[in-house]
Amino acid sequence: MASVSAELKGKYVLVINAGSSSFKTQILSCENEKPILAVLAERIGSDNGRIIFKINPDTDKEDKQAFDVHYKTHGDGIRDMMKRIVDMGILPNFDSIVASGHRVLLGGPHYSEVKIDATVKQVIRDYIPLGPLHNPANLACIEVIEEILPGVPAVAVFDTGFHTTMPDYAYTYGIPKQYSEKYSLRRYGFHGISHKFVSKTAAKYLGKDTFTGVCCHLGNGCSITAIKDGKCVDTTMGLTPLEGLLMGTRCGDIDASLPLFLMEQEGLSPSQMSDVLNKQSGLKALTGSNDMRDVESMIEKGDQNAVLANNIFNYRVIKYIGAYLAVLGKIDGILFTGGIGENAPVTREPICKAFEPFGLELDEELNQIRSGEPREINKKGSKIKALVVPTNEELEIMQTTLKILGY
Amino acid sequence: MASVSAELKGKYVLVINAGSSSFKTQILSCENEKPILAVLAERIGSDNGRIIFKINPDTDKEDKQAFDVHYKTHGDGIRDMMKRIVDMGILPNFDSIVASGHRVLLGGPHYSEVKIDATVKQVIRDYIPLGPLHNPANLACIEVIEEILPGVPAVAVFDTGFHTTMPDYAYTYGIPKQYSEKYSLRRYGFHGISHKFVSKTAAKYLGKDTFTGVCCHLGNGCSITAIKDGKCVDTTMGLTPLEGLLMGTRCGDIDASLPLFLMEQEGLSPSQMSDVLNKQSGLKALTGSNDMRDVESMIEKGDQNAVLANNIFNYRVIKYIGAYLAVLGKIDGILFTGGIGENAPVTREPICKAFEPFGLELDEELNQIRSGEPREINKKGSKIKALVVPTNEELEIMQTTLKILGY
Repeated sequence: MASVSAELKGKYVLVINAGSSSFKTQILSCENEKPILAVLAERIGSDNGRIIFKINPDTDKEDKQAFDVHYKTHGDGIRDMMKRIVDMGILPNFDSIVASGHRVLLGGPHYSEVKIDATVKQVIRDYIPLGPLHNPANLACIEVIEEILPGVPAVAVFDTGFHTTMPDYAYTYGIPKQYSEKYSLRRYGFHGISHKFVSKTAAKYLGKDTFTGVCCHLGNGCSITAIKDGKCVDTTMGLTPLEGLLMGTRCGDIDASLPLFLMEQEGLSPSQMSDVLNKQSGLKALTGSNDMRDVESMIEKGDQNAVLANNIFNYRVIKYIGAYLAVLGKIDGILFTGGIGENAPVTREPICKAFEPFGLELDEELNQIRSGEPREINKKGSKIKALVVPTNEELEIMQTTLKILGY
Repeated sequence: MASVSAELKGKYVLVINAGSSSFKTQILSCENEKPILAVLAERIGSDNGRIIFKINPDTDKEDKQAFDVHYKTHGDGIRDMMKRIVDMGILPNFDSIVASGHRVLLGGPHYSEVKIDATVKQVIRDYIPLGPLHNPANLACIEVIEEILPGVPAVAVFDTGFHTTMPDYAYTYGIPKQYSEKYSLRRYGFHGISHKFVSKTAAKYLGKDTFTGVCCHLGNGCSITAIKDGKCVDTTMGLTPLEGLLMGTRCGDIDASLPLFLMEQEGLSPSQMSDVLNKQSGLKALTGSNDMRDVESMIEKGDQNAVLANNIFNYRVIKYIGAYLAVLGKIDGILFTGGIGENAPVTREPICKAFEPFGLELDEELNQIRSGEPREINKKGSKIKALVVPTNEELEIMQTTLKILGY
């Protein structure tokens, strides 16, 4: 980024990534693409909310400050955060912010990344039924930032955007058209910003123009994407983030008859059933904890439930990598990212070893090394490479925002 | 079967395979394992039922006779069929029937094949909630045959039986144990009798003791099984036959949030939703016909819906074969059976070609040949073989019945 244009000197991009009851914010320098501030606001809507500011994050000078707060809405939280940014002297005012970039959950099948205007906001509103927790939060953040930063252009980067290149046979469900057309029901896929960033980074690392292979985002939410020449051709998450892998609290793939059977037997409503599958399932249902680090500790103590949960987790990853290997025919490599993907050698090892018959030779020592850098964990000469690539959604959003705005 | 024991000379096994509103019956000779009679009763419970007798089926002497009937229950149908067998002179009486073998849908995780007694009947009854249409029909047939053939031993061969060898990480869903334990919710898998027969036949054909590979049963219902050393290690159907591939009228894999969303939006009950996913989805929803032969004709006329449906069908098969290839590491071959698997070279071709990079070389001419015999459709020297193996569930049930009874 040595060649930053003169107009971006000393300028920043504000990146906002809102969840259903939280938001993350970064202010990134256009000059070196590093954040000067990272904010996390949690438990919006509850009495024991919290907002944490990290000034100069991930540097020697990191200064972390946390405050108890009671934000009724995302809008309240964003307003308070922006006020504190000036009050705390992080920025004297917002004149240096050239753009805001917003992660938005769902924008339908066509939008990938777009400058926000009234039409775009209407599309985000239109997709609220399919993203009932996230889309309204995303929209609230966009509108409050418009108020606070009048005239500063804003860009929506959709979490489904990277997946809009999927072929129809990968995204179409086999259900009656009267329903799929009426409600735009199809596979959308999520974690798209992360999959895009990680696969671009991998291509660069490997000295290729584009990446062809399988990208595993394994965190509290988990998804795998099949990528051909830099473009998504399939992904494990579906209409919602429920489908696919076993996750922290989500069941992933399941016979759709199972929830219908349970609803009938237990008298559960659709939204109660949805809660069970999205919030009370996955690792949490099988082990009591939704955190893979806890599961690993339990395994060390010989807990058989944890062993099973971990086996299911790995097994489903292996099945999807195999499926996508068949879809792609030939791959450069398998990428690991996300909290588990980046930090759990014990998870990466059995997954990589399953692909030894296909030409992946894991280097067990390299696999143990912890680092914040993209790195290979395969032996030299391995036909299929295995890479750990730390994700950075905020950086991806910032870069996309500037690109969309023509910088 | 030259070495049939003296006690089986001139003897027969009665095989009954009951569906939710139909049953198939065969009487097979213990000497040559060929049927002397094949019966199909359809539309049980409706006013326009029909029973079709094929005497000496699939031979030059085949004699087909059909009758309009009004069977209120499976029991009525079985009683009438047995009476007609004597009235029509097919058998003078039932003295030559040494055993009956019954296909039973669901017997829980432990039963595979077992001599029927009061305990077994209770187990079949216990699993009625999970097999509400089939298990009662299976039980009714068993009980009526007990009445008609008193003292003749009966064997239950469970359609889930072949899949009882799956490891826990393949059959466990990531849902709360309070539910999975209370209702025995897990992947059971179906088509087990067919997968077992076809994989045994393939092993014999290949001159091996057991088969290791992937078995695709593609008919109106579709499932794929991963088989290691002759034992099932995973299968695509789940708690019910809904999960997995796209089928004639079933959607197969789907984000479990989708039905929950639709139920809420459209005010559908669990059983209405189940009807949509099981009876109004799949090929039928996408093309108007649940029959792949119709879909093929539509494709020839350039129908784009049919092209898409066919692409989805093939794509999902390819994904699962890939997944199981990863699970197994190394395979002898890929097996095709069932109405589509045995008779649709246009379906087998793109599926096989997807595995060219993994060592499967399809012989396009061999693929076109129609035959009732097990056969290879790969080129000589192909590392992974592709075989078409006609299934024969009745023969498998007969052989299992005699084995269980110690013949």
